[in-house]
Amino acid sequence: MSTRPPRPWRRSPDAFLSDVEQVLPWVEKHLADGEHDAPWSDVAPGTILAAIPDHPPIAPDPLDAVLRDLNEYIKPGLVRWDTPGWMAWFPCNAHPDSIIGDLLSSVMSQQGMLWLSSPACTELEMRMMEWMRKSIGLPDQFAEGGDGGGVIQDTASSAVLATLVAARERATNGQVNEHGPSAAEGLVAYCSNQAHSSMAKAVGITGIGRANLRSIPTDQNYCMDIDAFQTQVEADLHAGLKPFFCSATVGTTASGAFDPVEAISAICQSHDMWLHVDAAWAGSAAISPTHRDLIIAGAAQADSWCFNPHKWLGAVFDCCCLWVADRRALTTAMAIDPEYLRNKQSEEGHVIDYRDWHVQLGRRFRALKLWLLLRRTGVSALAKMIDHHIELAASLEHAIASMPHLELAAPRSLSLVCARHRNGDAATQALLQRINNSGRFAVTHCSLNNTLVIRFAIGTLSVEDFDIEALIDLITTT
Amino acid sequence: MSTRPPRPWRRSPDAFLSDVEQVLPWVEKHLADGEHDAPWSDVAPGTILAAIPDHPPIAPDPLDAVLRDLNEYIKPGLVRWDTPGWMAWFPCNAHPDSIIGDLLSSVMSQQGMLWLSSPACTELEMRMMEWMRKSIGLPDQFAEGGDGGGVIQDTASSAVLATLVAARERATNGQVNEHGPSAAEGLVAYCSNQAHSSMAKAVGITGIGRANLRSIPTDQNYCMDIDAFQTQVEADLHAGLKPFFCSATVGTTASGAFDPVEAISAICQSHDMWLHVDAAWAGSAAISPTHRDLIIAGAAQADSWCFNPHKWLGAVFDCCCLWVADRRALTTAMAIDPEYLRNKQSEEGHVIDYRDWHVQLGRRFRALKLWLLLRRTGVSALAKMIDHHIELAASLEHAIASMPHLELAAPRSLSLVCARHRNGDAATQALLQRINNSGRFAVTHCSLNNTLVIRFAIGTLSVEDFDIEALIDLITTT
Repeated sequence: MSTRPPRPWRRSPDAFLSDVEQVLPWVEKHLADGEHDAPWSDVAPGTILAAIPDHPPIAPDPLDAVLRDLNEYIKPGLVRWDTPGWMAWFPCNAHPDSIIGDLLSSVMSQQGMLWLSSPACTELEMRMMEWMRKSIGLPDQFAEGGDGGGVIQDTASSAVLATLVAARERATNGQVNEHGPSAAEGLVAYCSNQAHSSMAKAVGITGIGRANLRSIPTDQNYCMDIDAFQTQVEADLHAGLKPFFCSATVGTTASGAFDPVEAISAICQSHDMWLHVDAAWAGSAAISPTHRDLIIAGAAQADSWCFNPHKWLGAVFDCCCLWVADRRALTTAMAIDPEYLRNKQSEEGHVIDYRDWHVQLGRRFRALKLWLLLRRTGVSALAKMIDHHIELAASLEHAIASMPHLELAAPRSLSLVCARHRNGDAATQALLQRINNSGRFAVTHCSLNNTLVIRFAIGTLSVEDFDIEALIDLITTT
Repeated sequence: MSTRPPRPWRRSPDAFLSDVEQVLPWVEKHLADGEHDAPWSDVAPGTILAAIPDHPPIAPDPLDAVLRDLNEYIKPGLVRWDTPGWMAWFPCNAHPDSIIGDLLSSVMSQQGMLWLSSPACTELEMRMMEWMRKSIGLPDQFAEGGDGGGVIQDTASSAVLATLVAARERATNGQVNEHGPSAAEGLVAYCSNQAHSSMAKAVGITGIGRANLRSIPTDQNYCMDIDAFQTQVEADLHAGLKPFFCSATVGTTASGAFDPVEAISAICQSHDMWLHVDAAWAGSAAISPTHRDLIIAGAAQADSWCFNPHKWLGAVFDCCCLWVADRRALTTAMAIDPEYLRNKQSEEGHVIDYRDWHVQLGRRFRALKLWLLLRRTGVSALAKMIDHHIELAASLEHAIASMPHLELAAPRSLSLVCARHRNGDAATQALLQRINNSGRFAVTHCSLNNTLVIRFAIGTLSVEDFDIEALIDLITTT
């Protein structure tokens, strides 16, 4: 029994459990509804904002009032990223096993900035990064215990930002961090014209400047044109500039194209450039032995490699796994060392302090959601899920290829199918709207070769063959 | 009933609820243990790592095996940030009400990058930022609906990085983002020598360079010396440099000192510098009308203002509230606009797309944890908690002031008390170790005026007067 007096700002463990019990039926219904709810929300802008009172409550509200409001004005504004027909952007799967891991993280309230501030958060993360590395077959230069290592970041945008800073400092011997613009003159970074927008954002944030990011042309399959890359690097060198960083994409956002990482790495090595591989979406598929080789090709020559288990693999958002071959390059670039964080364990150098691996100081115990997911679901089942989704995408691909009014806009990549109407953009747009108005399927678009393209990004936990058959029926009629 | 076949990678809502039920007794015991568990972990580096198998499980493990391992090797490595005697660094309170909000966020699996990708995530966040703004009495230039607005970031480190980029682009008319180093020459940023290390990290990341961050001396109370600031700005202007950003700290990490924000703002306004206020820890105390005025003084002239409800107020980590007076300055600096994210609602300009308010693209539905916290606990109870903690700190302050062997090392700030032994650093160090070896209290140190100082950062949800009395007993004996 607690000897502590009740206080209006506290909730006893008992009362907390009772609240959880009261919320669980809502949770169960919400998850069950995910099988048939329409994927898109149909609320108009401002509707939810207007429904919520202007001022916060001074006194507590009962939980049933909160649940009522949840149903009344929050739920209609949710987008069902978890419904079987969700094929927009990329999946964002929150596997129930990982949700339990994240609940435990909230309950434990750890701050993993230093080893000392949470040994469990630090060491479980080190091991989970090894589990993930082995699960997807990433090579040994990224292994914990050697010069490399892994860290959980929030998103691939943060990961590319951190690696860009590490590369910038490696290229300038730490002088940009120290002296700023004068040391950064002439630095040039590279990615393909299909790379994720986070790369352009990161060169802006880091002060490299978008004019110094070369957007390399791609081939007919939207993969980086290796000759164009080589030519550009040579031209930049000839102009007295300093190529220092290339981000290769394994699975572009638009069409899932794979840059030729091995060929890119050879050029990077010749010129001492940092090679980052962004496999944010496609990386999850490397858990399947069937698809692994394609995805990790060239990884052994990369300086950093990342993917987001929060997309396809089921780790509840946010969870981006980033590995570096030389962890000192990252930690030297990101380290700060104020007196109030100094401690014996850090100074003895036998521990990892993850605060030096990213922008943030404070950090959540994210490894728990990977631990619960891998323990409770197991690697084999996750690999089967990937194979299943890719088979479904292949069946959609074949169906579209046989339709007289549609055509594939790019080679299928894993579980991503890109298609367009043969009659042009207006017809493609009409089909896209019909799919999104179906109340069952959600898709988004991209632009390939200056034409409008519908992306079918298959991969929710619940999708089945009969969903794909229904989708095929829907798009077969013109 | 579901028509979907069971699959090894799926867990039905039923099975999920059953797992949650199985985990709840562990959660209840863990929370109850928080009343008496030792705050620090006593595991040696590498112990937990060695206890976890090298390879991930291929087949699923039963939940009871996971819970057994949780007890066997994870729990001993936890640091009890939630125990009553926790006074190290700052609090990191995870209020049960906010844990429920975060559980709902995991279950809903929303991606709030665009209004379209989750209207509920976007609009509840807009309103929660207004609730928080009104709760702490921040002025109207930050209000939603005008030129300003608020956003939930992960940490204050990310918030200062985002505002630094916004300020840099405002000062250079967007030219650093575009052209890089050549446009950033001569930019100079300012903070006090007591500012958080995230400021030095951010000037590094953004390519400003630490040589261009002026560390302004502080007065005898560790507040920025306004004359020194003015003199430095004038010297920099005279040298042809471009002062563009100042971060004022309201509640420094070491001793909780408050920079003179109003006086700083006058200098910033004279020279068109961006004024950011970092109230990461102290900001929570503005929810108490008793302490508000001190904390928000000068906020009406600031360009941005942030605090972390995940520290003192009970929002489960991570949750940093950042407001800006001119949201276009932020979104213009951070915006990227790839084709695959374009949509009608964004282009019509009637909605907020929060992806343009920070580094990350993807974002979690964090507003739910603030909503549940404010709804279920209410503003009044949270204000009472703050008052209670500050009263406890005042009683500790008075006790220390009356002890012949100890002295206050700085004026008490809200609930933070800094003290040292009159016999010098070695005696202070011995006392610090004795406190940390007590098995009941945890403290960390800082350096003030080149002497070692013990920080007592009071503020866990559970702390009571009898805890402070026991602490006073412990430190009274020499």
